[in-house]
This record gives sequence, C-alpha cells and structure tokens, in this order.
Amino acid sequence: MSSPEARWVHSGVIDTVTVALGDRSYDIVIGAGLLPALGTYLRSVVSPGVATIVTNATVRRLYGDVVSAALADAGFDPVTIEVPDGEAYKNLESLGHIYDGLVAARVERGSPIVALGGGVIGDLAGFAAATFLRGVPFVQVPTTVLAQVDSSVGGKTGVNHPAGKNLIGAFYQPRKVVIDLATLDTLPARELRAGLAEVVKYGAILSAPLFAAIERDLDRLLAGDHDVLRPVIRECCALKAMVVTRDEREADYRAILNFGHTLAHAVESLTGYDRYLHGEAVAIGMSFAARLSHRRGLCAAETVERLVHVLQRIGLPTELPPGLGQERIAQAVASDKKVAGRKVKFVCLEDIGSVRFEPIAADDVAALAVGGEQRA
Amino acid sequence: MSSPEARWVHSGVIDTVTVALGDRSYDIVIGAGLLPALGTYLRSVVSPGVATIVTNATVRRLYGDVVSAALADAGFDPVTIEVPDGEAYKNLESLGHIYDGLVAARVERGSPIVALGGGVIGDLAGFAAATFLRGVPFVQVPTTVLAQVDSSVGGKTGVNHPAGKNLIGAFYQPRKVVIDLATLDTLPARELRAGLAEVVKYGAILSAPLFAAIERDLDRLLAGDHDVLRPVIRECCALKAMVVTRDEREADYRAILNFGHTLAHAVESLTGYDRYLHGEAVAIGMSFAARLSHRRGLCAAETVERLVHVLQRIGLPTELPPGLGQERIAQAVASDKKVAGRKVKFVCLEDIGSVRFEPIAADDVAALAVGGEQRA
Repeated sequence: MSSPEARWVHSGVIDTVTVALGDRSYDIVIGAGLLPALGTYLRSVVSPGVATIVTNATVRRLYGDVVSAALADAGFDPVTIEVPDGEAYKNLESLGHIYDGLVAARVERGSPIVALGGGVIGDLAGFAAATFLRGVPFVQVPTTVLAQVDSSVGGKTGVNHPAGKNLIGAFYQPRKVVIDLATLDTLPARELRAGLAEVVKYGAILSAPLFAAIERDLDRLLAGDHDVLRPVIRECCALKAMVVTRDEREADYRAILNFGHTLAHAVESLTGYDRYLHGEAVAIGMSFAARLSHRRGLCAAETVERLVHVLQRIGLPTELPPGLGQERIAQAVASDKKVAGRKVKFVCLEDIGSVRFEPIAADDVAALAVGGEQRA
Repeated sequence: MSSPEARWVHSGVIDTVTVALGDRSYDIVIGAGLLPALGTYLRSVVSPGVATIVTNATVRRLYGDVVSAALADAGFDPVTIEVPDGEAYKNLESLGHIYDGLVAARVERGSPIVALGGGVIGDLAGFAAATFLRGVPFVQVPTTVLAQVDSSVGGKTGVNHPAGKNLIGAFYQPRKVVIDLATLDTLPARELRAGLAEVVKYGAILSAPLFAAIERDLDRLLAGDHDVLRPVIRECCALKAMVVTRDEREADYRAILNFGHTLAHAVESLTGYDRYLHGEAVAIGMSFAARLSHRRGLCAAETVERLVHVLQRIGLPTELPPGLGQERIAQAVASDKKVAGRKVKFVCLEDIGSVRFEPIAADDVAALAVGGEQRA
C-alpha cells in the first residue's frame, strides 16, 4: 500500500461504451487506474512496434513514465513527442513539430499514435494521425473531463487558423479510447469546472435525467468523486456515441453538439485563445443561446434560469465579456464552419434535454450578443 | 474560325470513366475543348456560390481566364489562389497559403475547390479540400499527362516532408475529374515525355495490349496527337479506376501502382525535388525495378530490355545518377510510406502486364542501386 504504484492498481467497475461505425467501430473504456494496463488495450488493436505518445510537459511529468512503462511492458517501443500546452498552440506550427517527431521516430503505417492529455493534445495528435502517411492508428487517452466526455470521442480532429477555431481538420476515428478517472485527481480545479460545462451541455441538449443527476450530485462531481464521475462520464460518452453513429460527418443532426459553441468559438478567437478555457467559453455561449432561444419564444424563462444557475454553481462565467465589439463578433461568427449563405445554423434550447436548429444571420447573433452585454 | 475562342469549341468524342466507390463515386470525363463547359460539369455536382481555383502562374496565364469565365457563366463566384510552381513547393508552407486564401474567400462547407494544373497543384489543392472545414467538395482539372493519367484519379492528396515525398496527406476523392486534352497543346515537351512514363507504367503492370499500343503509336503520342492520346489516357484512367475501386485505401493491391516509385521517391528526395520531373524519376525507378526483378529470376532479360527501350525512345532517363551514396539511398528508401519492419514492399516485374510484391530490405535496395550505378 505504501508503494507509489499502489494507486494504479485497478479496482472497481470498468464501463465500456461501443461507438458502432461499421469497420471504424471502437470501444471507450472507463475506469479508475487503467493507465498501467494501457499496453494491453493498445495490443488489442495494433501490433507491437514503435508507439508514439503525443503529450505536453505537464501531463508528461505526471503520467509519462507510467504510460511509457505500460507500453514497453506490452512489447511496444515508446517514443514521446512533446508539444506546448494550451489552445494557442493548436496550430499548423505544432503540427509540423509533430510530423518532424514522427519522421524521426521512423513511424510506419501500422505504428499507433497515442494522445495523452486534454482536448488540444487529442485534436493535434488525431489530425497528425489522420494525415501522416495518409493515416496511422490512433488511440485517445484523455486526461481532462472535457476531453473524456467530448473531444476524445467522435473523430473530430484539427487545428485552429488565426481566422477561427478548428478551421483545418479531418474526421478520423480512434481505434480505442481509454479513460482513466484517476488522471482527474491531478486536474486543476479550474479545468475540472470547465470540463463540467460540456457535461451540462449533454444534459441540456439530450437528457433531462442526466441534467437532474448533475444538479443533484454537483458537490461530489466538483470534489472529483470517481463514483459519481464514472456514471456521468459514461452517460456523456454514450450520448455522444449515439449522436456520432447517427451522423458521423455532421451532415445535419450531429450539429446539436455545437450548442453554445457558435458564440464560444467567436469569444475564444477574439480573446486570443488565452483568456478562457474552452469549457468556460462554452458556458458563456450556452447561456447566450438559452437567452436567445427564450427571446424567440422557443423556451421558458425558467429553463434559461435552470441552465444558468447550474453553470454558476459550477463557478463558470455566463456573460459575454465587455468590449469585444459587435462587428468583430459578427465577423468571427460568420467564419464559423456551420455557416451557409452567411446564416449560422444556431442550436436553440426548447427545454432541458431538447434543442432545435434555427438559421440566424451572423449579424443578428452579434447584435443580440452585444445587446446582452449592454443589458448586463 | 479566327476568334481566339474557336479552339475551345468542342468537337469529337467525349469519354467517361466512372470510379465506382459507393457514395464517393465520380466520373472522369475526357475530351478536347472541355474547359469552357467546366461550369456545367461543376454544377452537376455542387450548388452555385464561391468556387476557388487553385493554380500556378503558368497555368493561370494560359487558362485562368477561360476557366474563371466558364465558372461565372454557370453562376459561380470564382476566386483564384496561386501557388508557386514545382514539386519543391508542395509543402506545408504552400498549404498554409492556400488555407489563408480559402479563409479570405469565405469558403463555406459546400464551396468547391478546383485544382487547375499538374500533379503538384492537384495534390496540394486536394489536401486543402480534404482538411479545410474538415472537407469541402473537390474537382480535378488536370493539365499535364501525368496528372491526367495518374495523380488526379484515386483520391491520394498530400504534401512532402523534407524527409520524404507525400509523407503527409489524406485519401480524399474528387467529385469530378475533367480532362481537357487541349491543355496538352501548351505542355512543354519535357513534361509530356515525363507524363508518358506513368502511361508506360500502366502498360507494364497491368496491360500488355496498352503497352503494345504505346510502342506502336509512340511517335504520335510524342507529337501530342489527340486522337491517340484520348484512348490511351482513357485506358490508363480505367485501369486506375479498377485498381482504386478494388483497394481504395491501399490496404494491399493498390500498391502495384507504386511500380518504380520506391527508388523514384528516394531519387527525388536526394536531389531536392528540382533535378528530375516526377515521371523522369519514375522512369529511372521502373528501369531499376525491372533489372532487380531479372536478377531475382522473376522476369526475362527481354522484358527488361523492352521496358527500358520504350522509355529511352520517349527520351527518359533509365539509369540512377552517380554520387547519391548507398547509405543516403538506404535511409531515403527506409522513409518510404510502404515500409514495414524496415522492409519495403517492392513491386517486381514478372512480364509486360504483370507484377508481384516482394519484401526487400531497404539496405538491399540501396546496395543494388549503387551496384547498378558502379556497373553502369
């Protein structure tokens, strides 16, 4: 019990959620203390050889050794590529750095890339995996709540362009997603809270019972209690798997996952990706989307209140920061990937657990956003 | 007849080859004078709106106006993005330049990208189309023999890395390929000859009748005679379509198209992509592959002779340039995408029209290549 490895000895439930996409199907495994078994999970989908771990300095210091040892134990030759931490570095330059590392590691077509970290690491490593040698096997090991419930599942990968978030990317499914809840023990409180914004999103758009469970268990979620995190994270993964299997490449339905994201992307872009964590911007965006929905007569004032209240209890921002400027917001919104004919496919709230699409002009979104700002 | 547009009035046969890939199926249309009808072809696969033409200065000067006018006539809003000419510019930097242009043009998810040019343009524009907004519609308008018979068909897109050719890329099928034989009238003779190397390749690997037709009609092919170019180009496209529909993502069979390419890529990389045109390097690589096959007892000396002879009649190089160095060749060969466990899946010639795979160590390939050089 006194050994440092003791915390890694797995005990308790392991959940598995299958994302059923024909020959691109894969499992998401969720439990506490799974990292030392990572080599076994990897061996279940690829043959031994070079295995590249893409991570950042912070995560490497915490989990680099245990992951490298786990891969080596399973017969892999682990190589680590480090990229700088933060959304500001999710760009073509970091991607070029990863490509250089993959060349140096002599990665072959069957050599897996393992993303060890949060959403930035997963998006960058996934896009590198999608495009290096026109595609090598990819495994997600998300270490933040946000990555565990959202970005690691569903195959969206990519990098930002100065003009907008994720403008460059690919749909590329992982071969496996391994979610170790123990990695959340070291997650900064601010990151945990930001990740819960996406958890709230799943409840708001798809599941009133999940939303009620979040309200009920919020204190234990904020305390990082594995016993409440596991079923909540599993439920989010199952909801995302349902959405993705129904519309893998976002022809239409999958866009419901963008609830709160239209304005969130604009806010992140206009604040240089360094003021807000993604989840914080999503909290602002969801609050705005709910208010906009209410103004259009699509949902009750109580529904807006209930959403905003739970976000505030988590400690998340729910108002647009002042001074972004209506014109700049309109331009940023118009750069959104979901734009068609300058109209945004806006995800509006009808009730807790129910949303619908409304086409809204980018200029109208910006005017309402700034109006809300002046009102606040 | 005196109007400059007269040459564009189409007359004669239009061939269509369908690449049958389920919901990613598309047609290749082949004829002389098709550019003025490009808007109609584009309208058959996408709705009007912004249409981005990616090209280089040389091709733009020759065909930019006619293509822009054709797209405008069909209701599109044409925008041109120019990239520098040559394989040396098929890199991440040019790709970034294209992304910037797509952002500036306000390209949306349904806005097509048209590649107007040779293989470099097609590979760059195709990879940009595959990855901008995680994929926008793509149309190929190849203006070189090489692009018409090989690179524009089959969905391989990508850019080079200093360590090797096409190390970064994606499989992304075009919605349409429009081959206007009239564009070959302005093709420099050296480019025409280099393109015929890939035509010879299709005969060598898959079709003795095609190979015999090339031998028979070579003088007229070299003179750019549309009446012999059309059926030869159509046959190459049909053979490629057959290969691609059997193995779209190069799990195995599609790799036969790499006949001559293992050494060609090494030669191009070691000479900085500026000494040989791709087809010239392929001619060297095919000659080498044939000699290697003969040494291993896989084909007759007469088969090697017949292949080398037709390449020499075209005016293509068939010997490795001196001074590349065995170790550097081995390293370049080992960087090939087809490497597994340091062994290259080498495409060997059995007879005209027939090839087989042989796993050969990168070091052995290099030793034989340098041995051949010393012998020569």
